[in-house]
Amino acid sequence: MAWSVCVVGSVALDSVETPSGNAPNILGGSASYFAVAASFLAPVRMVAVTGSDFPAGEREFLASRGIDLDGLVEVDGKTFRWTGRYHDDMNVRDTLDLQLNVFAEFSPKLPPAYRKSELMFLANIQPGLQSSVLSQLEDCRYSGADTMDHWIEGDREALESLLADVQLLSINDSEASLLTGERNMVAAAEAIRAMGPAALVIKRGEYGALLFTDDGVFAVPALPLANVVDPTGAGDCFAGGMFGSLAASESLDGPALRRAVVYGSVLASFAVEDFGLNRLRTLSRADVAGRFQEFANLTRF
Amino acid sequence: MAWSVCVVGSVALDSVETPSGNAPNILGGSASYFAVAASFLAPVRMVAVTGSDFPAGEREFLASRGIDLDGLVEVDGKTFRWTGRYHDDMNVRDTLDLQLNVFAEFSPKLPPAYRKSELMFLANIQPGLQSSVLSQLEDCRYSGADTMDHWIEGDREALESLLADVQLLSINDSEASLLTGERNMVAAAEAIRAMGPAALVIKRGEYGALLFTDDGVFAVPALPLANVVDPTGAGDCFAGGMFGSLAASESLDGPALRRAVVYGSVLASFAVEDFGLNRLRTLSRADVAGRFQEFANLTRF
Repeated sequence: MAWSVCVVGSVALDSVETPSGNAPNILGGSASYFAVAASFLAPVRMVAVTGSDFPAGEREFLASRGIDLDGLVEVDGKTFRWTGRYHDDMNVRDTLDLQLNVFAEFSPKLPPAYRKSELMFLANIQPGLQSSVLSQLEDCRYSGADTMDHWIEGDREALESLLADVQLLSINDSEASLLTGERNMVAAAEAIRAMGPAALVIKRGEYGALLFTDDGVFAVPALPLANVVDPTGAGDCFAGGMFGSLAASESLDGPALRRAVVYGSVLASFAVEDFGLNRLRTLSRADVAGRFQEFANLTRF
Repeated sequence: MAWSVCVVGSVALDSVETPSGNAPNILGGSASYFAVAASFLAPVRMVAVTGSDFPAGEREFLASRGIDLDGLVEVDGKTFRWTGRYHDDMNVRDTLDLQLNVFAEFSPKLPPAYRKSELMFLANIQPGLQSSVLSQLEDCRYSGADTMDHWIEGDREALESLLADVQLLSINDSEASLLTGERNMVAAAEAIRAMGPAALVIKRGEYGALLFTDDGVFAVPALPLANVVDPTGAGDCFAGGMFGSLAASESLDGPALRRAVVYGSVLASFAVEDFGLNRLRTLSRADVAGRFQEFANLTRF
């Protein structure tokens, strides 16, 4: 029996435009991406909020992945909506519309059974809310968090307080520079780890990811893909694959963390191959295992 | 006895400004960087031209690395000079001054003993000259080339003719896109390999490198470095490390090519740690072996 992974974050309905086309009103949000990705490897519980307009079929999809939805609360009102457009260089995107809706009043509460989750991931929400979730845990082996430029620039004190309490931070390279003022990733990693998290994952999109721990640095390149359709949620799928892998291995040692970063890369690589969570709707555990082997072939020498 | 590596390219006196400082009138040029890097692994021969102002001490330095200098011709006039300034983002640089001097009339001629070099590398010069060198070879197992945006845009026909004749091309990602019109590296690699070279190395600076062959794709991340002083010549040191490794292993099979890409990364990682070739002046073979092991530690899972 693997450890349980609990995630708190957003559930959204996204409308996405990329050079490959358009996808209106699709399932999105950091908790959705994380939970679906992690569900290929371990039992997952999610804490998030939807409005009364949230499609029953999407809730059924999440349940079909074996995700525990006791913490997915539905309240009167509309679900969080995000509309975005990616440039030809898909590292750049514009937010065209953002409606927080019921997410504006989100105050995450862990159902009693969730309080003993072995692993906790705090996806990107206001840092004070992330800390409030940590304080509800009774017995947690390992917690990780994501954040974004908005909180780094606008809620720094709450973010620093959170960082003192988590074991892992997962952010992208520009966020690492923003958080530390360091352009060099070795210097940025040193500064961030001094703030609290013993493990730091720096995501670099199409270039892969770095893991900094007391054991040194681990680097995994991204799998070169012929067809990248939609990068939305790739970072959340990365974190989901990572925590799912840690849960499945029931270990937090150095080799387990390295394998987890590779499983994160595996799930992210699938996620970007279609809009939203579409690729993961038809994915099998054999696909996941096969791509893990592709990463081994990609990097061995 | 390892195979011999022959390189044709430029020898220059560079003046470089980076966020770390200034270095005026230092040894540079693609052939210098390549030859010094390769010399840590195998016997090297270089074909290039200097002016009568070329410092005797720099020629002695090249000789002290065991580099065969029969093909390093000195002619009346001034040595090729380049002056450049890097931005805080060291992926961006401005050329402040360029004086071709004696390099303008460079017409590479292989000394008779060089014509039987097992490995040939055509560093970045005019593609027609690169082809003229190939035609002087009598017995060569493997040839590789580098090029740049200037030739891709301005001398396309000669470049395509060259590509049909070399086994390996080593370029950076933006050059791969410029050459093919493809932003996606998998698509760009397919298009370039269809032009001739069975092996394509795509250099991505601080993100590492990709190798595309009939065996599939190999990716090696760059070693995260705390101190990057001067990126000049990193790509040429990469090619030098690569060809030096192939020569030392006397093999061109899949595993040998992968190891060669790692040795290329090793030499490039040292090169950027100081201005010009300064770091390589004090480097030992034990340093090279140690950093190869660092790459193994960096990537193993």
